Amino acid sequence: MRLRGRKGIRESLEEQQDIVVLNPKEYKGKWSSLFGNDRPIHVEFGMGKGQFISQMSYRNQEINFIGVDMYDELIRRASEKGRLAWAEEEVESPPNLQLALMNIENVEDVFEEGELERIYLNFSDPWPKKKHGRRRLTHPRFLDKYVRILNERGEIHFKTDSVSLFQFSLNAFADYGLQMTNISLDLHAEGPNEEFVMTEYESKFYSQGMNIHRCEAIVGQEALERYRKQRLSKYGV
Amino acid sequence: MRLRGRKGIRESLEEQQDIVVLNPKEYKGKWSSLFGNDRPIHVEFGMGKGQFISQMSYRNQEINFIGVDMYDELIRRASEKGRLAWAEEEVESPPNLQLALMNIENVEDVFEEGELERIYLNFSDPWPKKKHGRRRLTHPRFLDKYVRILNERGEIHFKTDSVSLFQFSLNAFADYGLQMTNISLDLHAEGPNEEFVMTEYESKFYSQGMNIHRCEAIVGQEALERYRKQRLSKYGV
Ligand SMILES: C[S@@+](CC[C@H](N)C(=O)[O-])C[C@H]1O[C@@H](n2cnc3c(N)ncnc32)[C@H](O)[C@@H]1O
Ligand SMILES: C[S@@+](CC[C@H](N)C(=O)[O-])C[C@H]1O[C@@H](n2cnc3c(N)ncnc32)[C@H](O)[C@@H]1O
Repeated sequence: MRLRGRKGIRESLEEQQDIVVLNPKEYKGKWSSLFGNDRPIHVEFGMGKGQFISQMSYRNQEINFIGVDMYDELIRRASEKGRLAWAEEEVESPPNLQLALMNIENVEDVFEEGELERIYLNFSDPWPKKKHGRRRLTHPRFLDKYVRILNERGEIHFKTDSVSLFQFSLNAFADYGLQMTNISLDLHAEGPNEEFVMTEYESKFYSQGMNIHRCEAIVGQEALERYRKQRLSKYGV
Repeated sequence: MRLRGRKGIRESLEEQQDIVVLNPKEYKGKWSSLFGNDRPIHVEFGMGKGQFISQMSYRNQEINFIGVDMYDELIRRASEKGRLAWAEEEVESPPNLQLALMNIENVEDVFEEGELERIYLNFSDPWPKKKHGRRRLTHPRFLDKYVRILNERGEIHFKTDSVSLFQFSLNAFADYGLQMTNISLDLHAEGPNEEFVMTEYESKFYSQGMNIHRCEAIVGQEALERYRKQRLSKYGV
């Protein structure tokens, strides 16, 4: 019951400092020491209730994950899901998961240049009105920020149900000069694609029969070189 | 009546040498002299009944157009549409339109390096089975050919209803290293987009409520430089 009210939520978050970060700016350049190791850091911007980041942290224990959202309530929901995902393991806290309360506008105050290896954008708000285009998380003004905080192996992995946001984003990545790969216009065409962990929004839209769109944008030079070595091999040319 | 049978069609084509080319290999490197001027040459590979190329030739009289297909009957239908599009003008033949009977596999026997400025691929056969992937007109083995016959201002403009072919093609362009631009997942979202001439297939699919997908791939160095100068301006960054 205590967790219900607004005050209750904040108190709950304050008691969960093992996986909840209420003051993420203090960790700029120090996320690896928070995790206690130098493993790659993957971040989801706008994680919502946290199903994706929780499952990812459990499935990929050699990666450190940070889930970002700007609402206390969502951080709390994600903290529950995060602990649940790890419930069968004998750990006090999910060792490779942190949940950061912050506004994505401020990513550069929270992450040092090159501090991240991957950014996940899952079902970001589509902001369909043209005048709100600058708020879309794939707008070049956000890409500017992402490119700075990603490292040499850096990639952006993007999923959405929204046709208009996907169209906008493909053009934004292309116009920004990012190499795209693994573009999919119907990710679960042959039934749920187990290779990819579904988010809450994704499960909902998928069950409504909507197409899920996905693509990767390659940012880092090393990632680009690795990609270039094999990009045409799949065509048998 | 004479035009009905197979023999009739071939005879009809032979009588239309003003706009029908039955032996296109003989014009390799000589298309400009056939048109009688040095204007840019735009080609549609797989024009079908020719609505698009006919309208384009009438609307854009400063460009030379070549419609390509491999069936006599389609060349004949296109020749009718081509003449019809120009019917109100006082010309004996559409001056900037040629229809070439050929297999696209052989483009390099028909066009010299750099002889073309634009390639239109409209509603190309989707070849949905994976084992037929090499037949898709956006497969890298075709891109290899297109890149050779296009000039410094060269672009490929691609439209399709097929989600699977569009997905394949976006990846193929990206993997091939071509700069994409003006990607649209629903070209006529706000009613028929008058900026673009519809093809026969397009009218049909559009009236059935299907999404039309479109994108441009920039090939030539000059086209690329022009694009790069303005690519981010539309975002107001
Ligand atoms: C549509 S939801 C998608 C949630 C989740 N990724 C999913 O797929 O189920 C978008 C989320 O992004 C968060 N968000 C939007 N803008 C944000 C911002 N500027 N800073 C932090 N979070 C933001 C919202 O609070 C919301 O939880
Ligand atoms: C699906 S139709 C589309 C016709 C037209 N572009 C439209 O949008 O209405 C594809 C056309 O490509 C032609 N085509 C397919 N493969 C070809 C090839 N290898 N050489 C020449 N034409 C080809 C077919 O004959 C057919 O007319």
